[in-house]
Amino acid sequence: MHRNRLIEAIRQKRSYLCVGLDTDIRKIPVHLQGRPDAVVAFNRAIIEATKDYCVSYKINTAFYEGMGLKGWEAMAETVDMIPGTHLKIADAKRADIGNTSSYYARAFFEELGFDAVTVAPYMGEDSLSPFLSYDDKWTIVLGLTSNPGAADFELQKIATGNGAAEYLYERVLKTVSKWGNINNLMFVAGATQATELGRIRTIIPDHFLLVPGVGFQGGSLQEVSEHGLNKDYGLLINASRAIIYAGGQENFAEEAAEIARQYQAEMSIYLEQDFNHPHDPK
Amino acid sequence: MHRNRLIEAIRQKRSYLCVGLDTDIRKIPVHLQGRPDAVVAFNRAIIEATKDYCVSYKINTAFYEGMGLKGWEAMAETVDMIPGTHLKIADAKRADIGNTSSYYARAFFEELGFDAVTVAPYMGEDSLSPFLSYDDKWTIVLGLTSNPGAADFELQKIATGNGAAEYLYERVLKTVSKWGNINNLMFVAGATQATELGRIRTIIPDHFLLVPGVGFQGGSLQEVSEHGLNKDYGLLINASRAIIYAGGQENFAEEAAEIARQYQAEMSIYLEQDFNHPHDPK
Repeated sequence: MHRNRLIEAIRQKRSYLCVGLDTDIRKIPVHLQGRPDAVVAFNRAIIEATKDYCVSYKINTAFYEGMGLKGWEAMAETVDMIPGTHLKIADAKRADIGNTSSYYARAFFEELGFDAVTVAPYMGEDSLSPFLSYDDKWTIVLGLTSNPGAADFELQKIATGNGAAEYLYERVLKTVSKWGNINNLMFVAGATQATELGRIRTIIPDHFLLVPGVGFQGGSLQEVSEHGLNKDYGLLINASRAIIYAGGQENFAEEAAEIARQYQAEMSIYLEQDFNHPHDPK
Repeated sequence: MHRNRLIEAIRQKRSYLCVGLDTDIRKIPVHLQGRPDAVVAFNRAIIEATKDYCVSYKINTAFYEGMGLKGWEAMAETVDMIPGTHLKIADAKRADIGNTSSYYARAFFEELGFDAVTVAPYMGEDSLSPFLSYDDKWTIVLGLTSNPGAADFELQKIATGNGAAEYLYERVLKTVSKWGNINNLMFVAGATQATELGRIRTIIPDHFLLVPGVGFQGGSLQEVSEHGLNKDYGLLINASRAIIYAGGQENFAEEAAEIARQYQAEMSIYLEQDFNHPHDPK
């Protein structure tokens, strides 16, 4: 999906919501659990209920791989159910040496038909370049994540040439942003670190950020929006459990729609407040 | 697999070879390619031909995911074909926030039945702890990798408290080694960086190292062995393409066996030369 189409979708829907389909067979409503296609049926209902309020869906591969072969199958079916109007993100956090990474790129971009895949930066340029070589596909690189473990390495200081120092995640943003451009590269920026988002915006003012951690992980939608939005919107905020498990009963889809609608309504306010977006209707 | 069993296997076979089943459908012999079970048939022949010369098999998930659903199926069948005497490694380079990583751990340790899985350290402790919580399973953490991209972040200097600095990968070794022990934690150390292996051994003298990059990537078996072996052997050296694609014709299995045998023969020499292993027969 081209960047302009993503911007246009945000403009039209007044939403930069990404719904995370982190579907755990043990957490979906009981009435679905007996069905052989339980996960796909759940995802279909969630997509149908939320698609008007979001511009993207994110599938975290861990939840599907944890179910074995039938999980991989459910993932493939789920990607196919997502409307072509929505950015399809594989939250896979892959990367390997260059030759090997090209097989991951093929898996997610060609075999499964995702528009975007998240990758880990540790192994450096040749581990990411096979993903970046695809036209109209997105490589979403881990910058600063929303988990406690971010403190262990991402927030350690790297020495710079002049005796100063910067966080590892800052070095990652600066270095990786040279390997791609604003049309094929996004960064993950955790919402639990909202105070860091301003700092992130000084390094990469123009890139889209994928922000997880709003909702159950405790990040504030308002803070993230205030620090993260840019002139092209530049923000996708993901919520997973807060939406898909909003209702645990037969009405789960209606409950999910209601929470997604609330996110969208709040986002539409921040879109009005904070910027004169060149894309906005005058 | 318990550490003592791995050590015993190395002692008995005089080999610390790991065969990498990086099977690409387009690179296997032509006479197999028409078969619907081509990848599994190829792997079965390679395992049968090489199992006497190695103590471990490593499956890089990228090659299987790149084939879509049938690739994931072929991976599951391949794991089941590996004898229980051999350490089964999923070279998956996964990791996510803690809750999510537990699904990856389940995928590889429970659903697929691997003994070990490689993981990326970038996201810190909670991203690795779900893997480490399994008994008699191994978490193999990326330390210093064998690709050019290692220079981008792994070999950047992290500031230490006292005004000095150390490589990011050294910080990873020091920090991560506190999260597990020598019975559930190994590290990836690339063979193309053999001069760094001595440095690595001063930080983690007792851990097993998984060393890729011997063969096509140019690492020297002798150098790696001299710097990497410890009193419990402590080394698994992986070769993939150099073995599995040694012959491109109908005799591919015999050719693979011959190369694996050569590795084993060379390894048996280094095992004699360099150490008085307490495990060796007197």
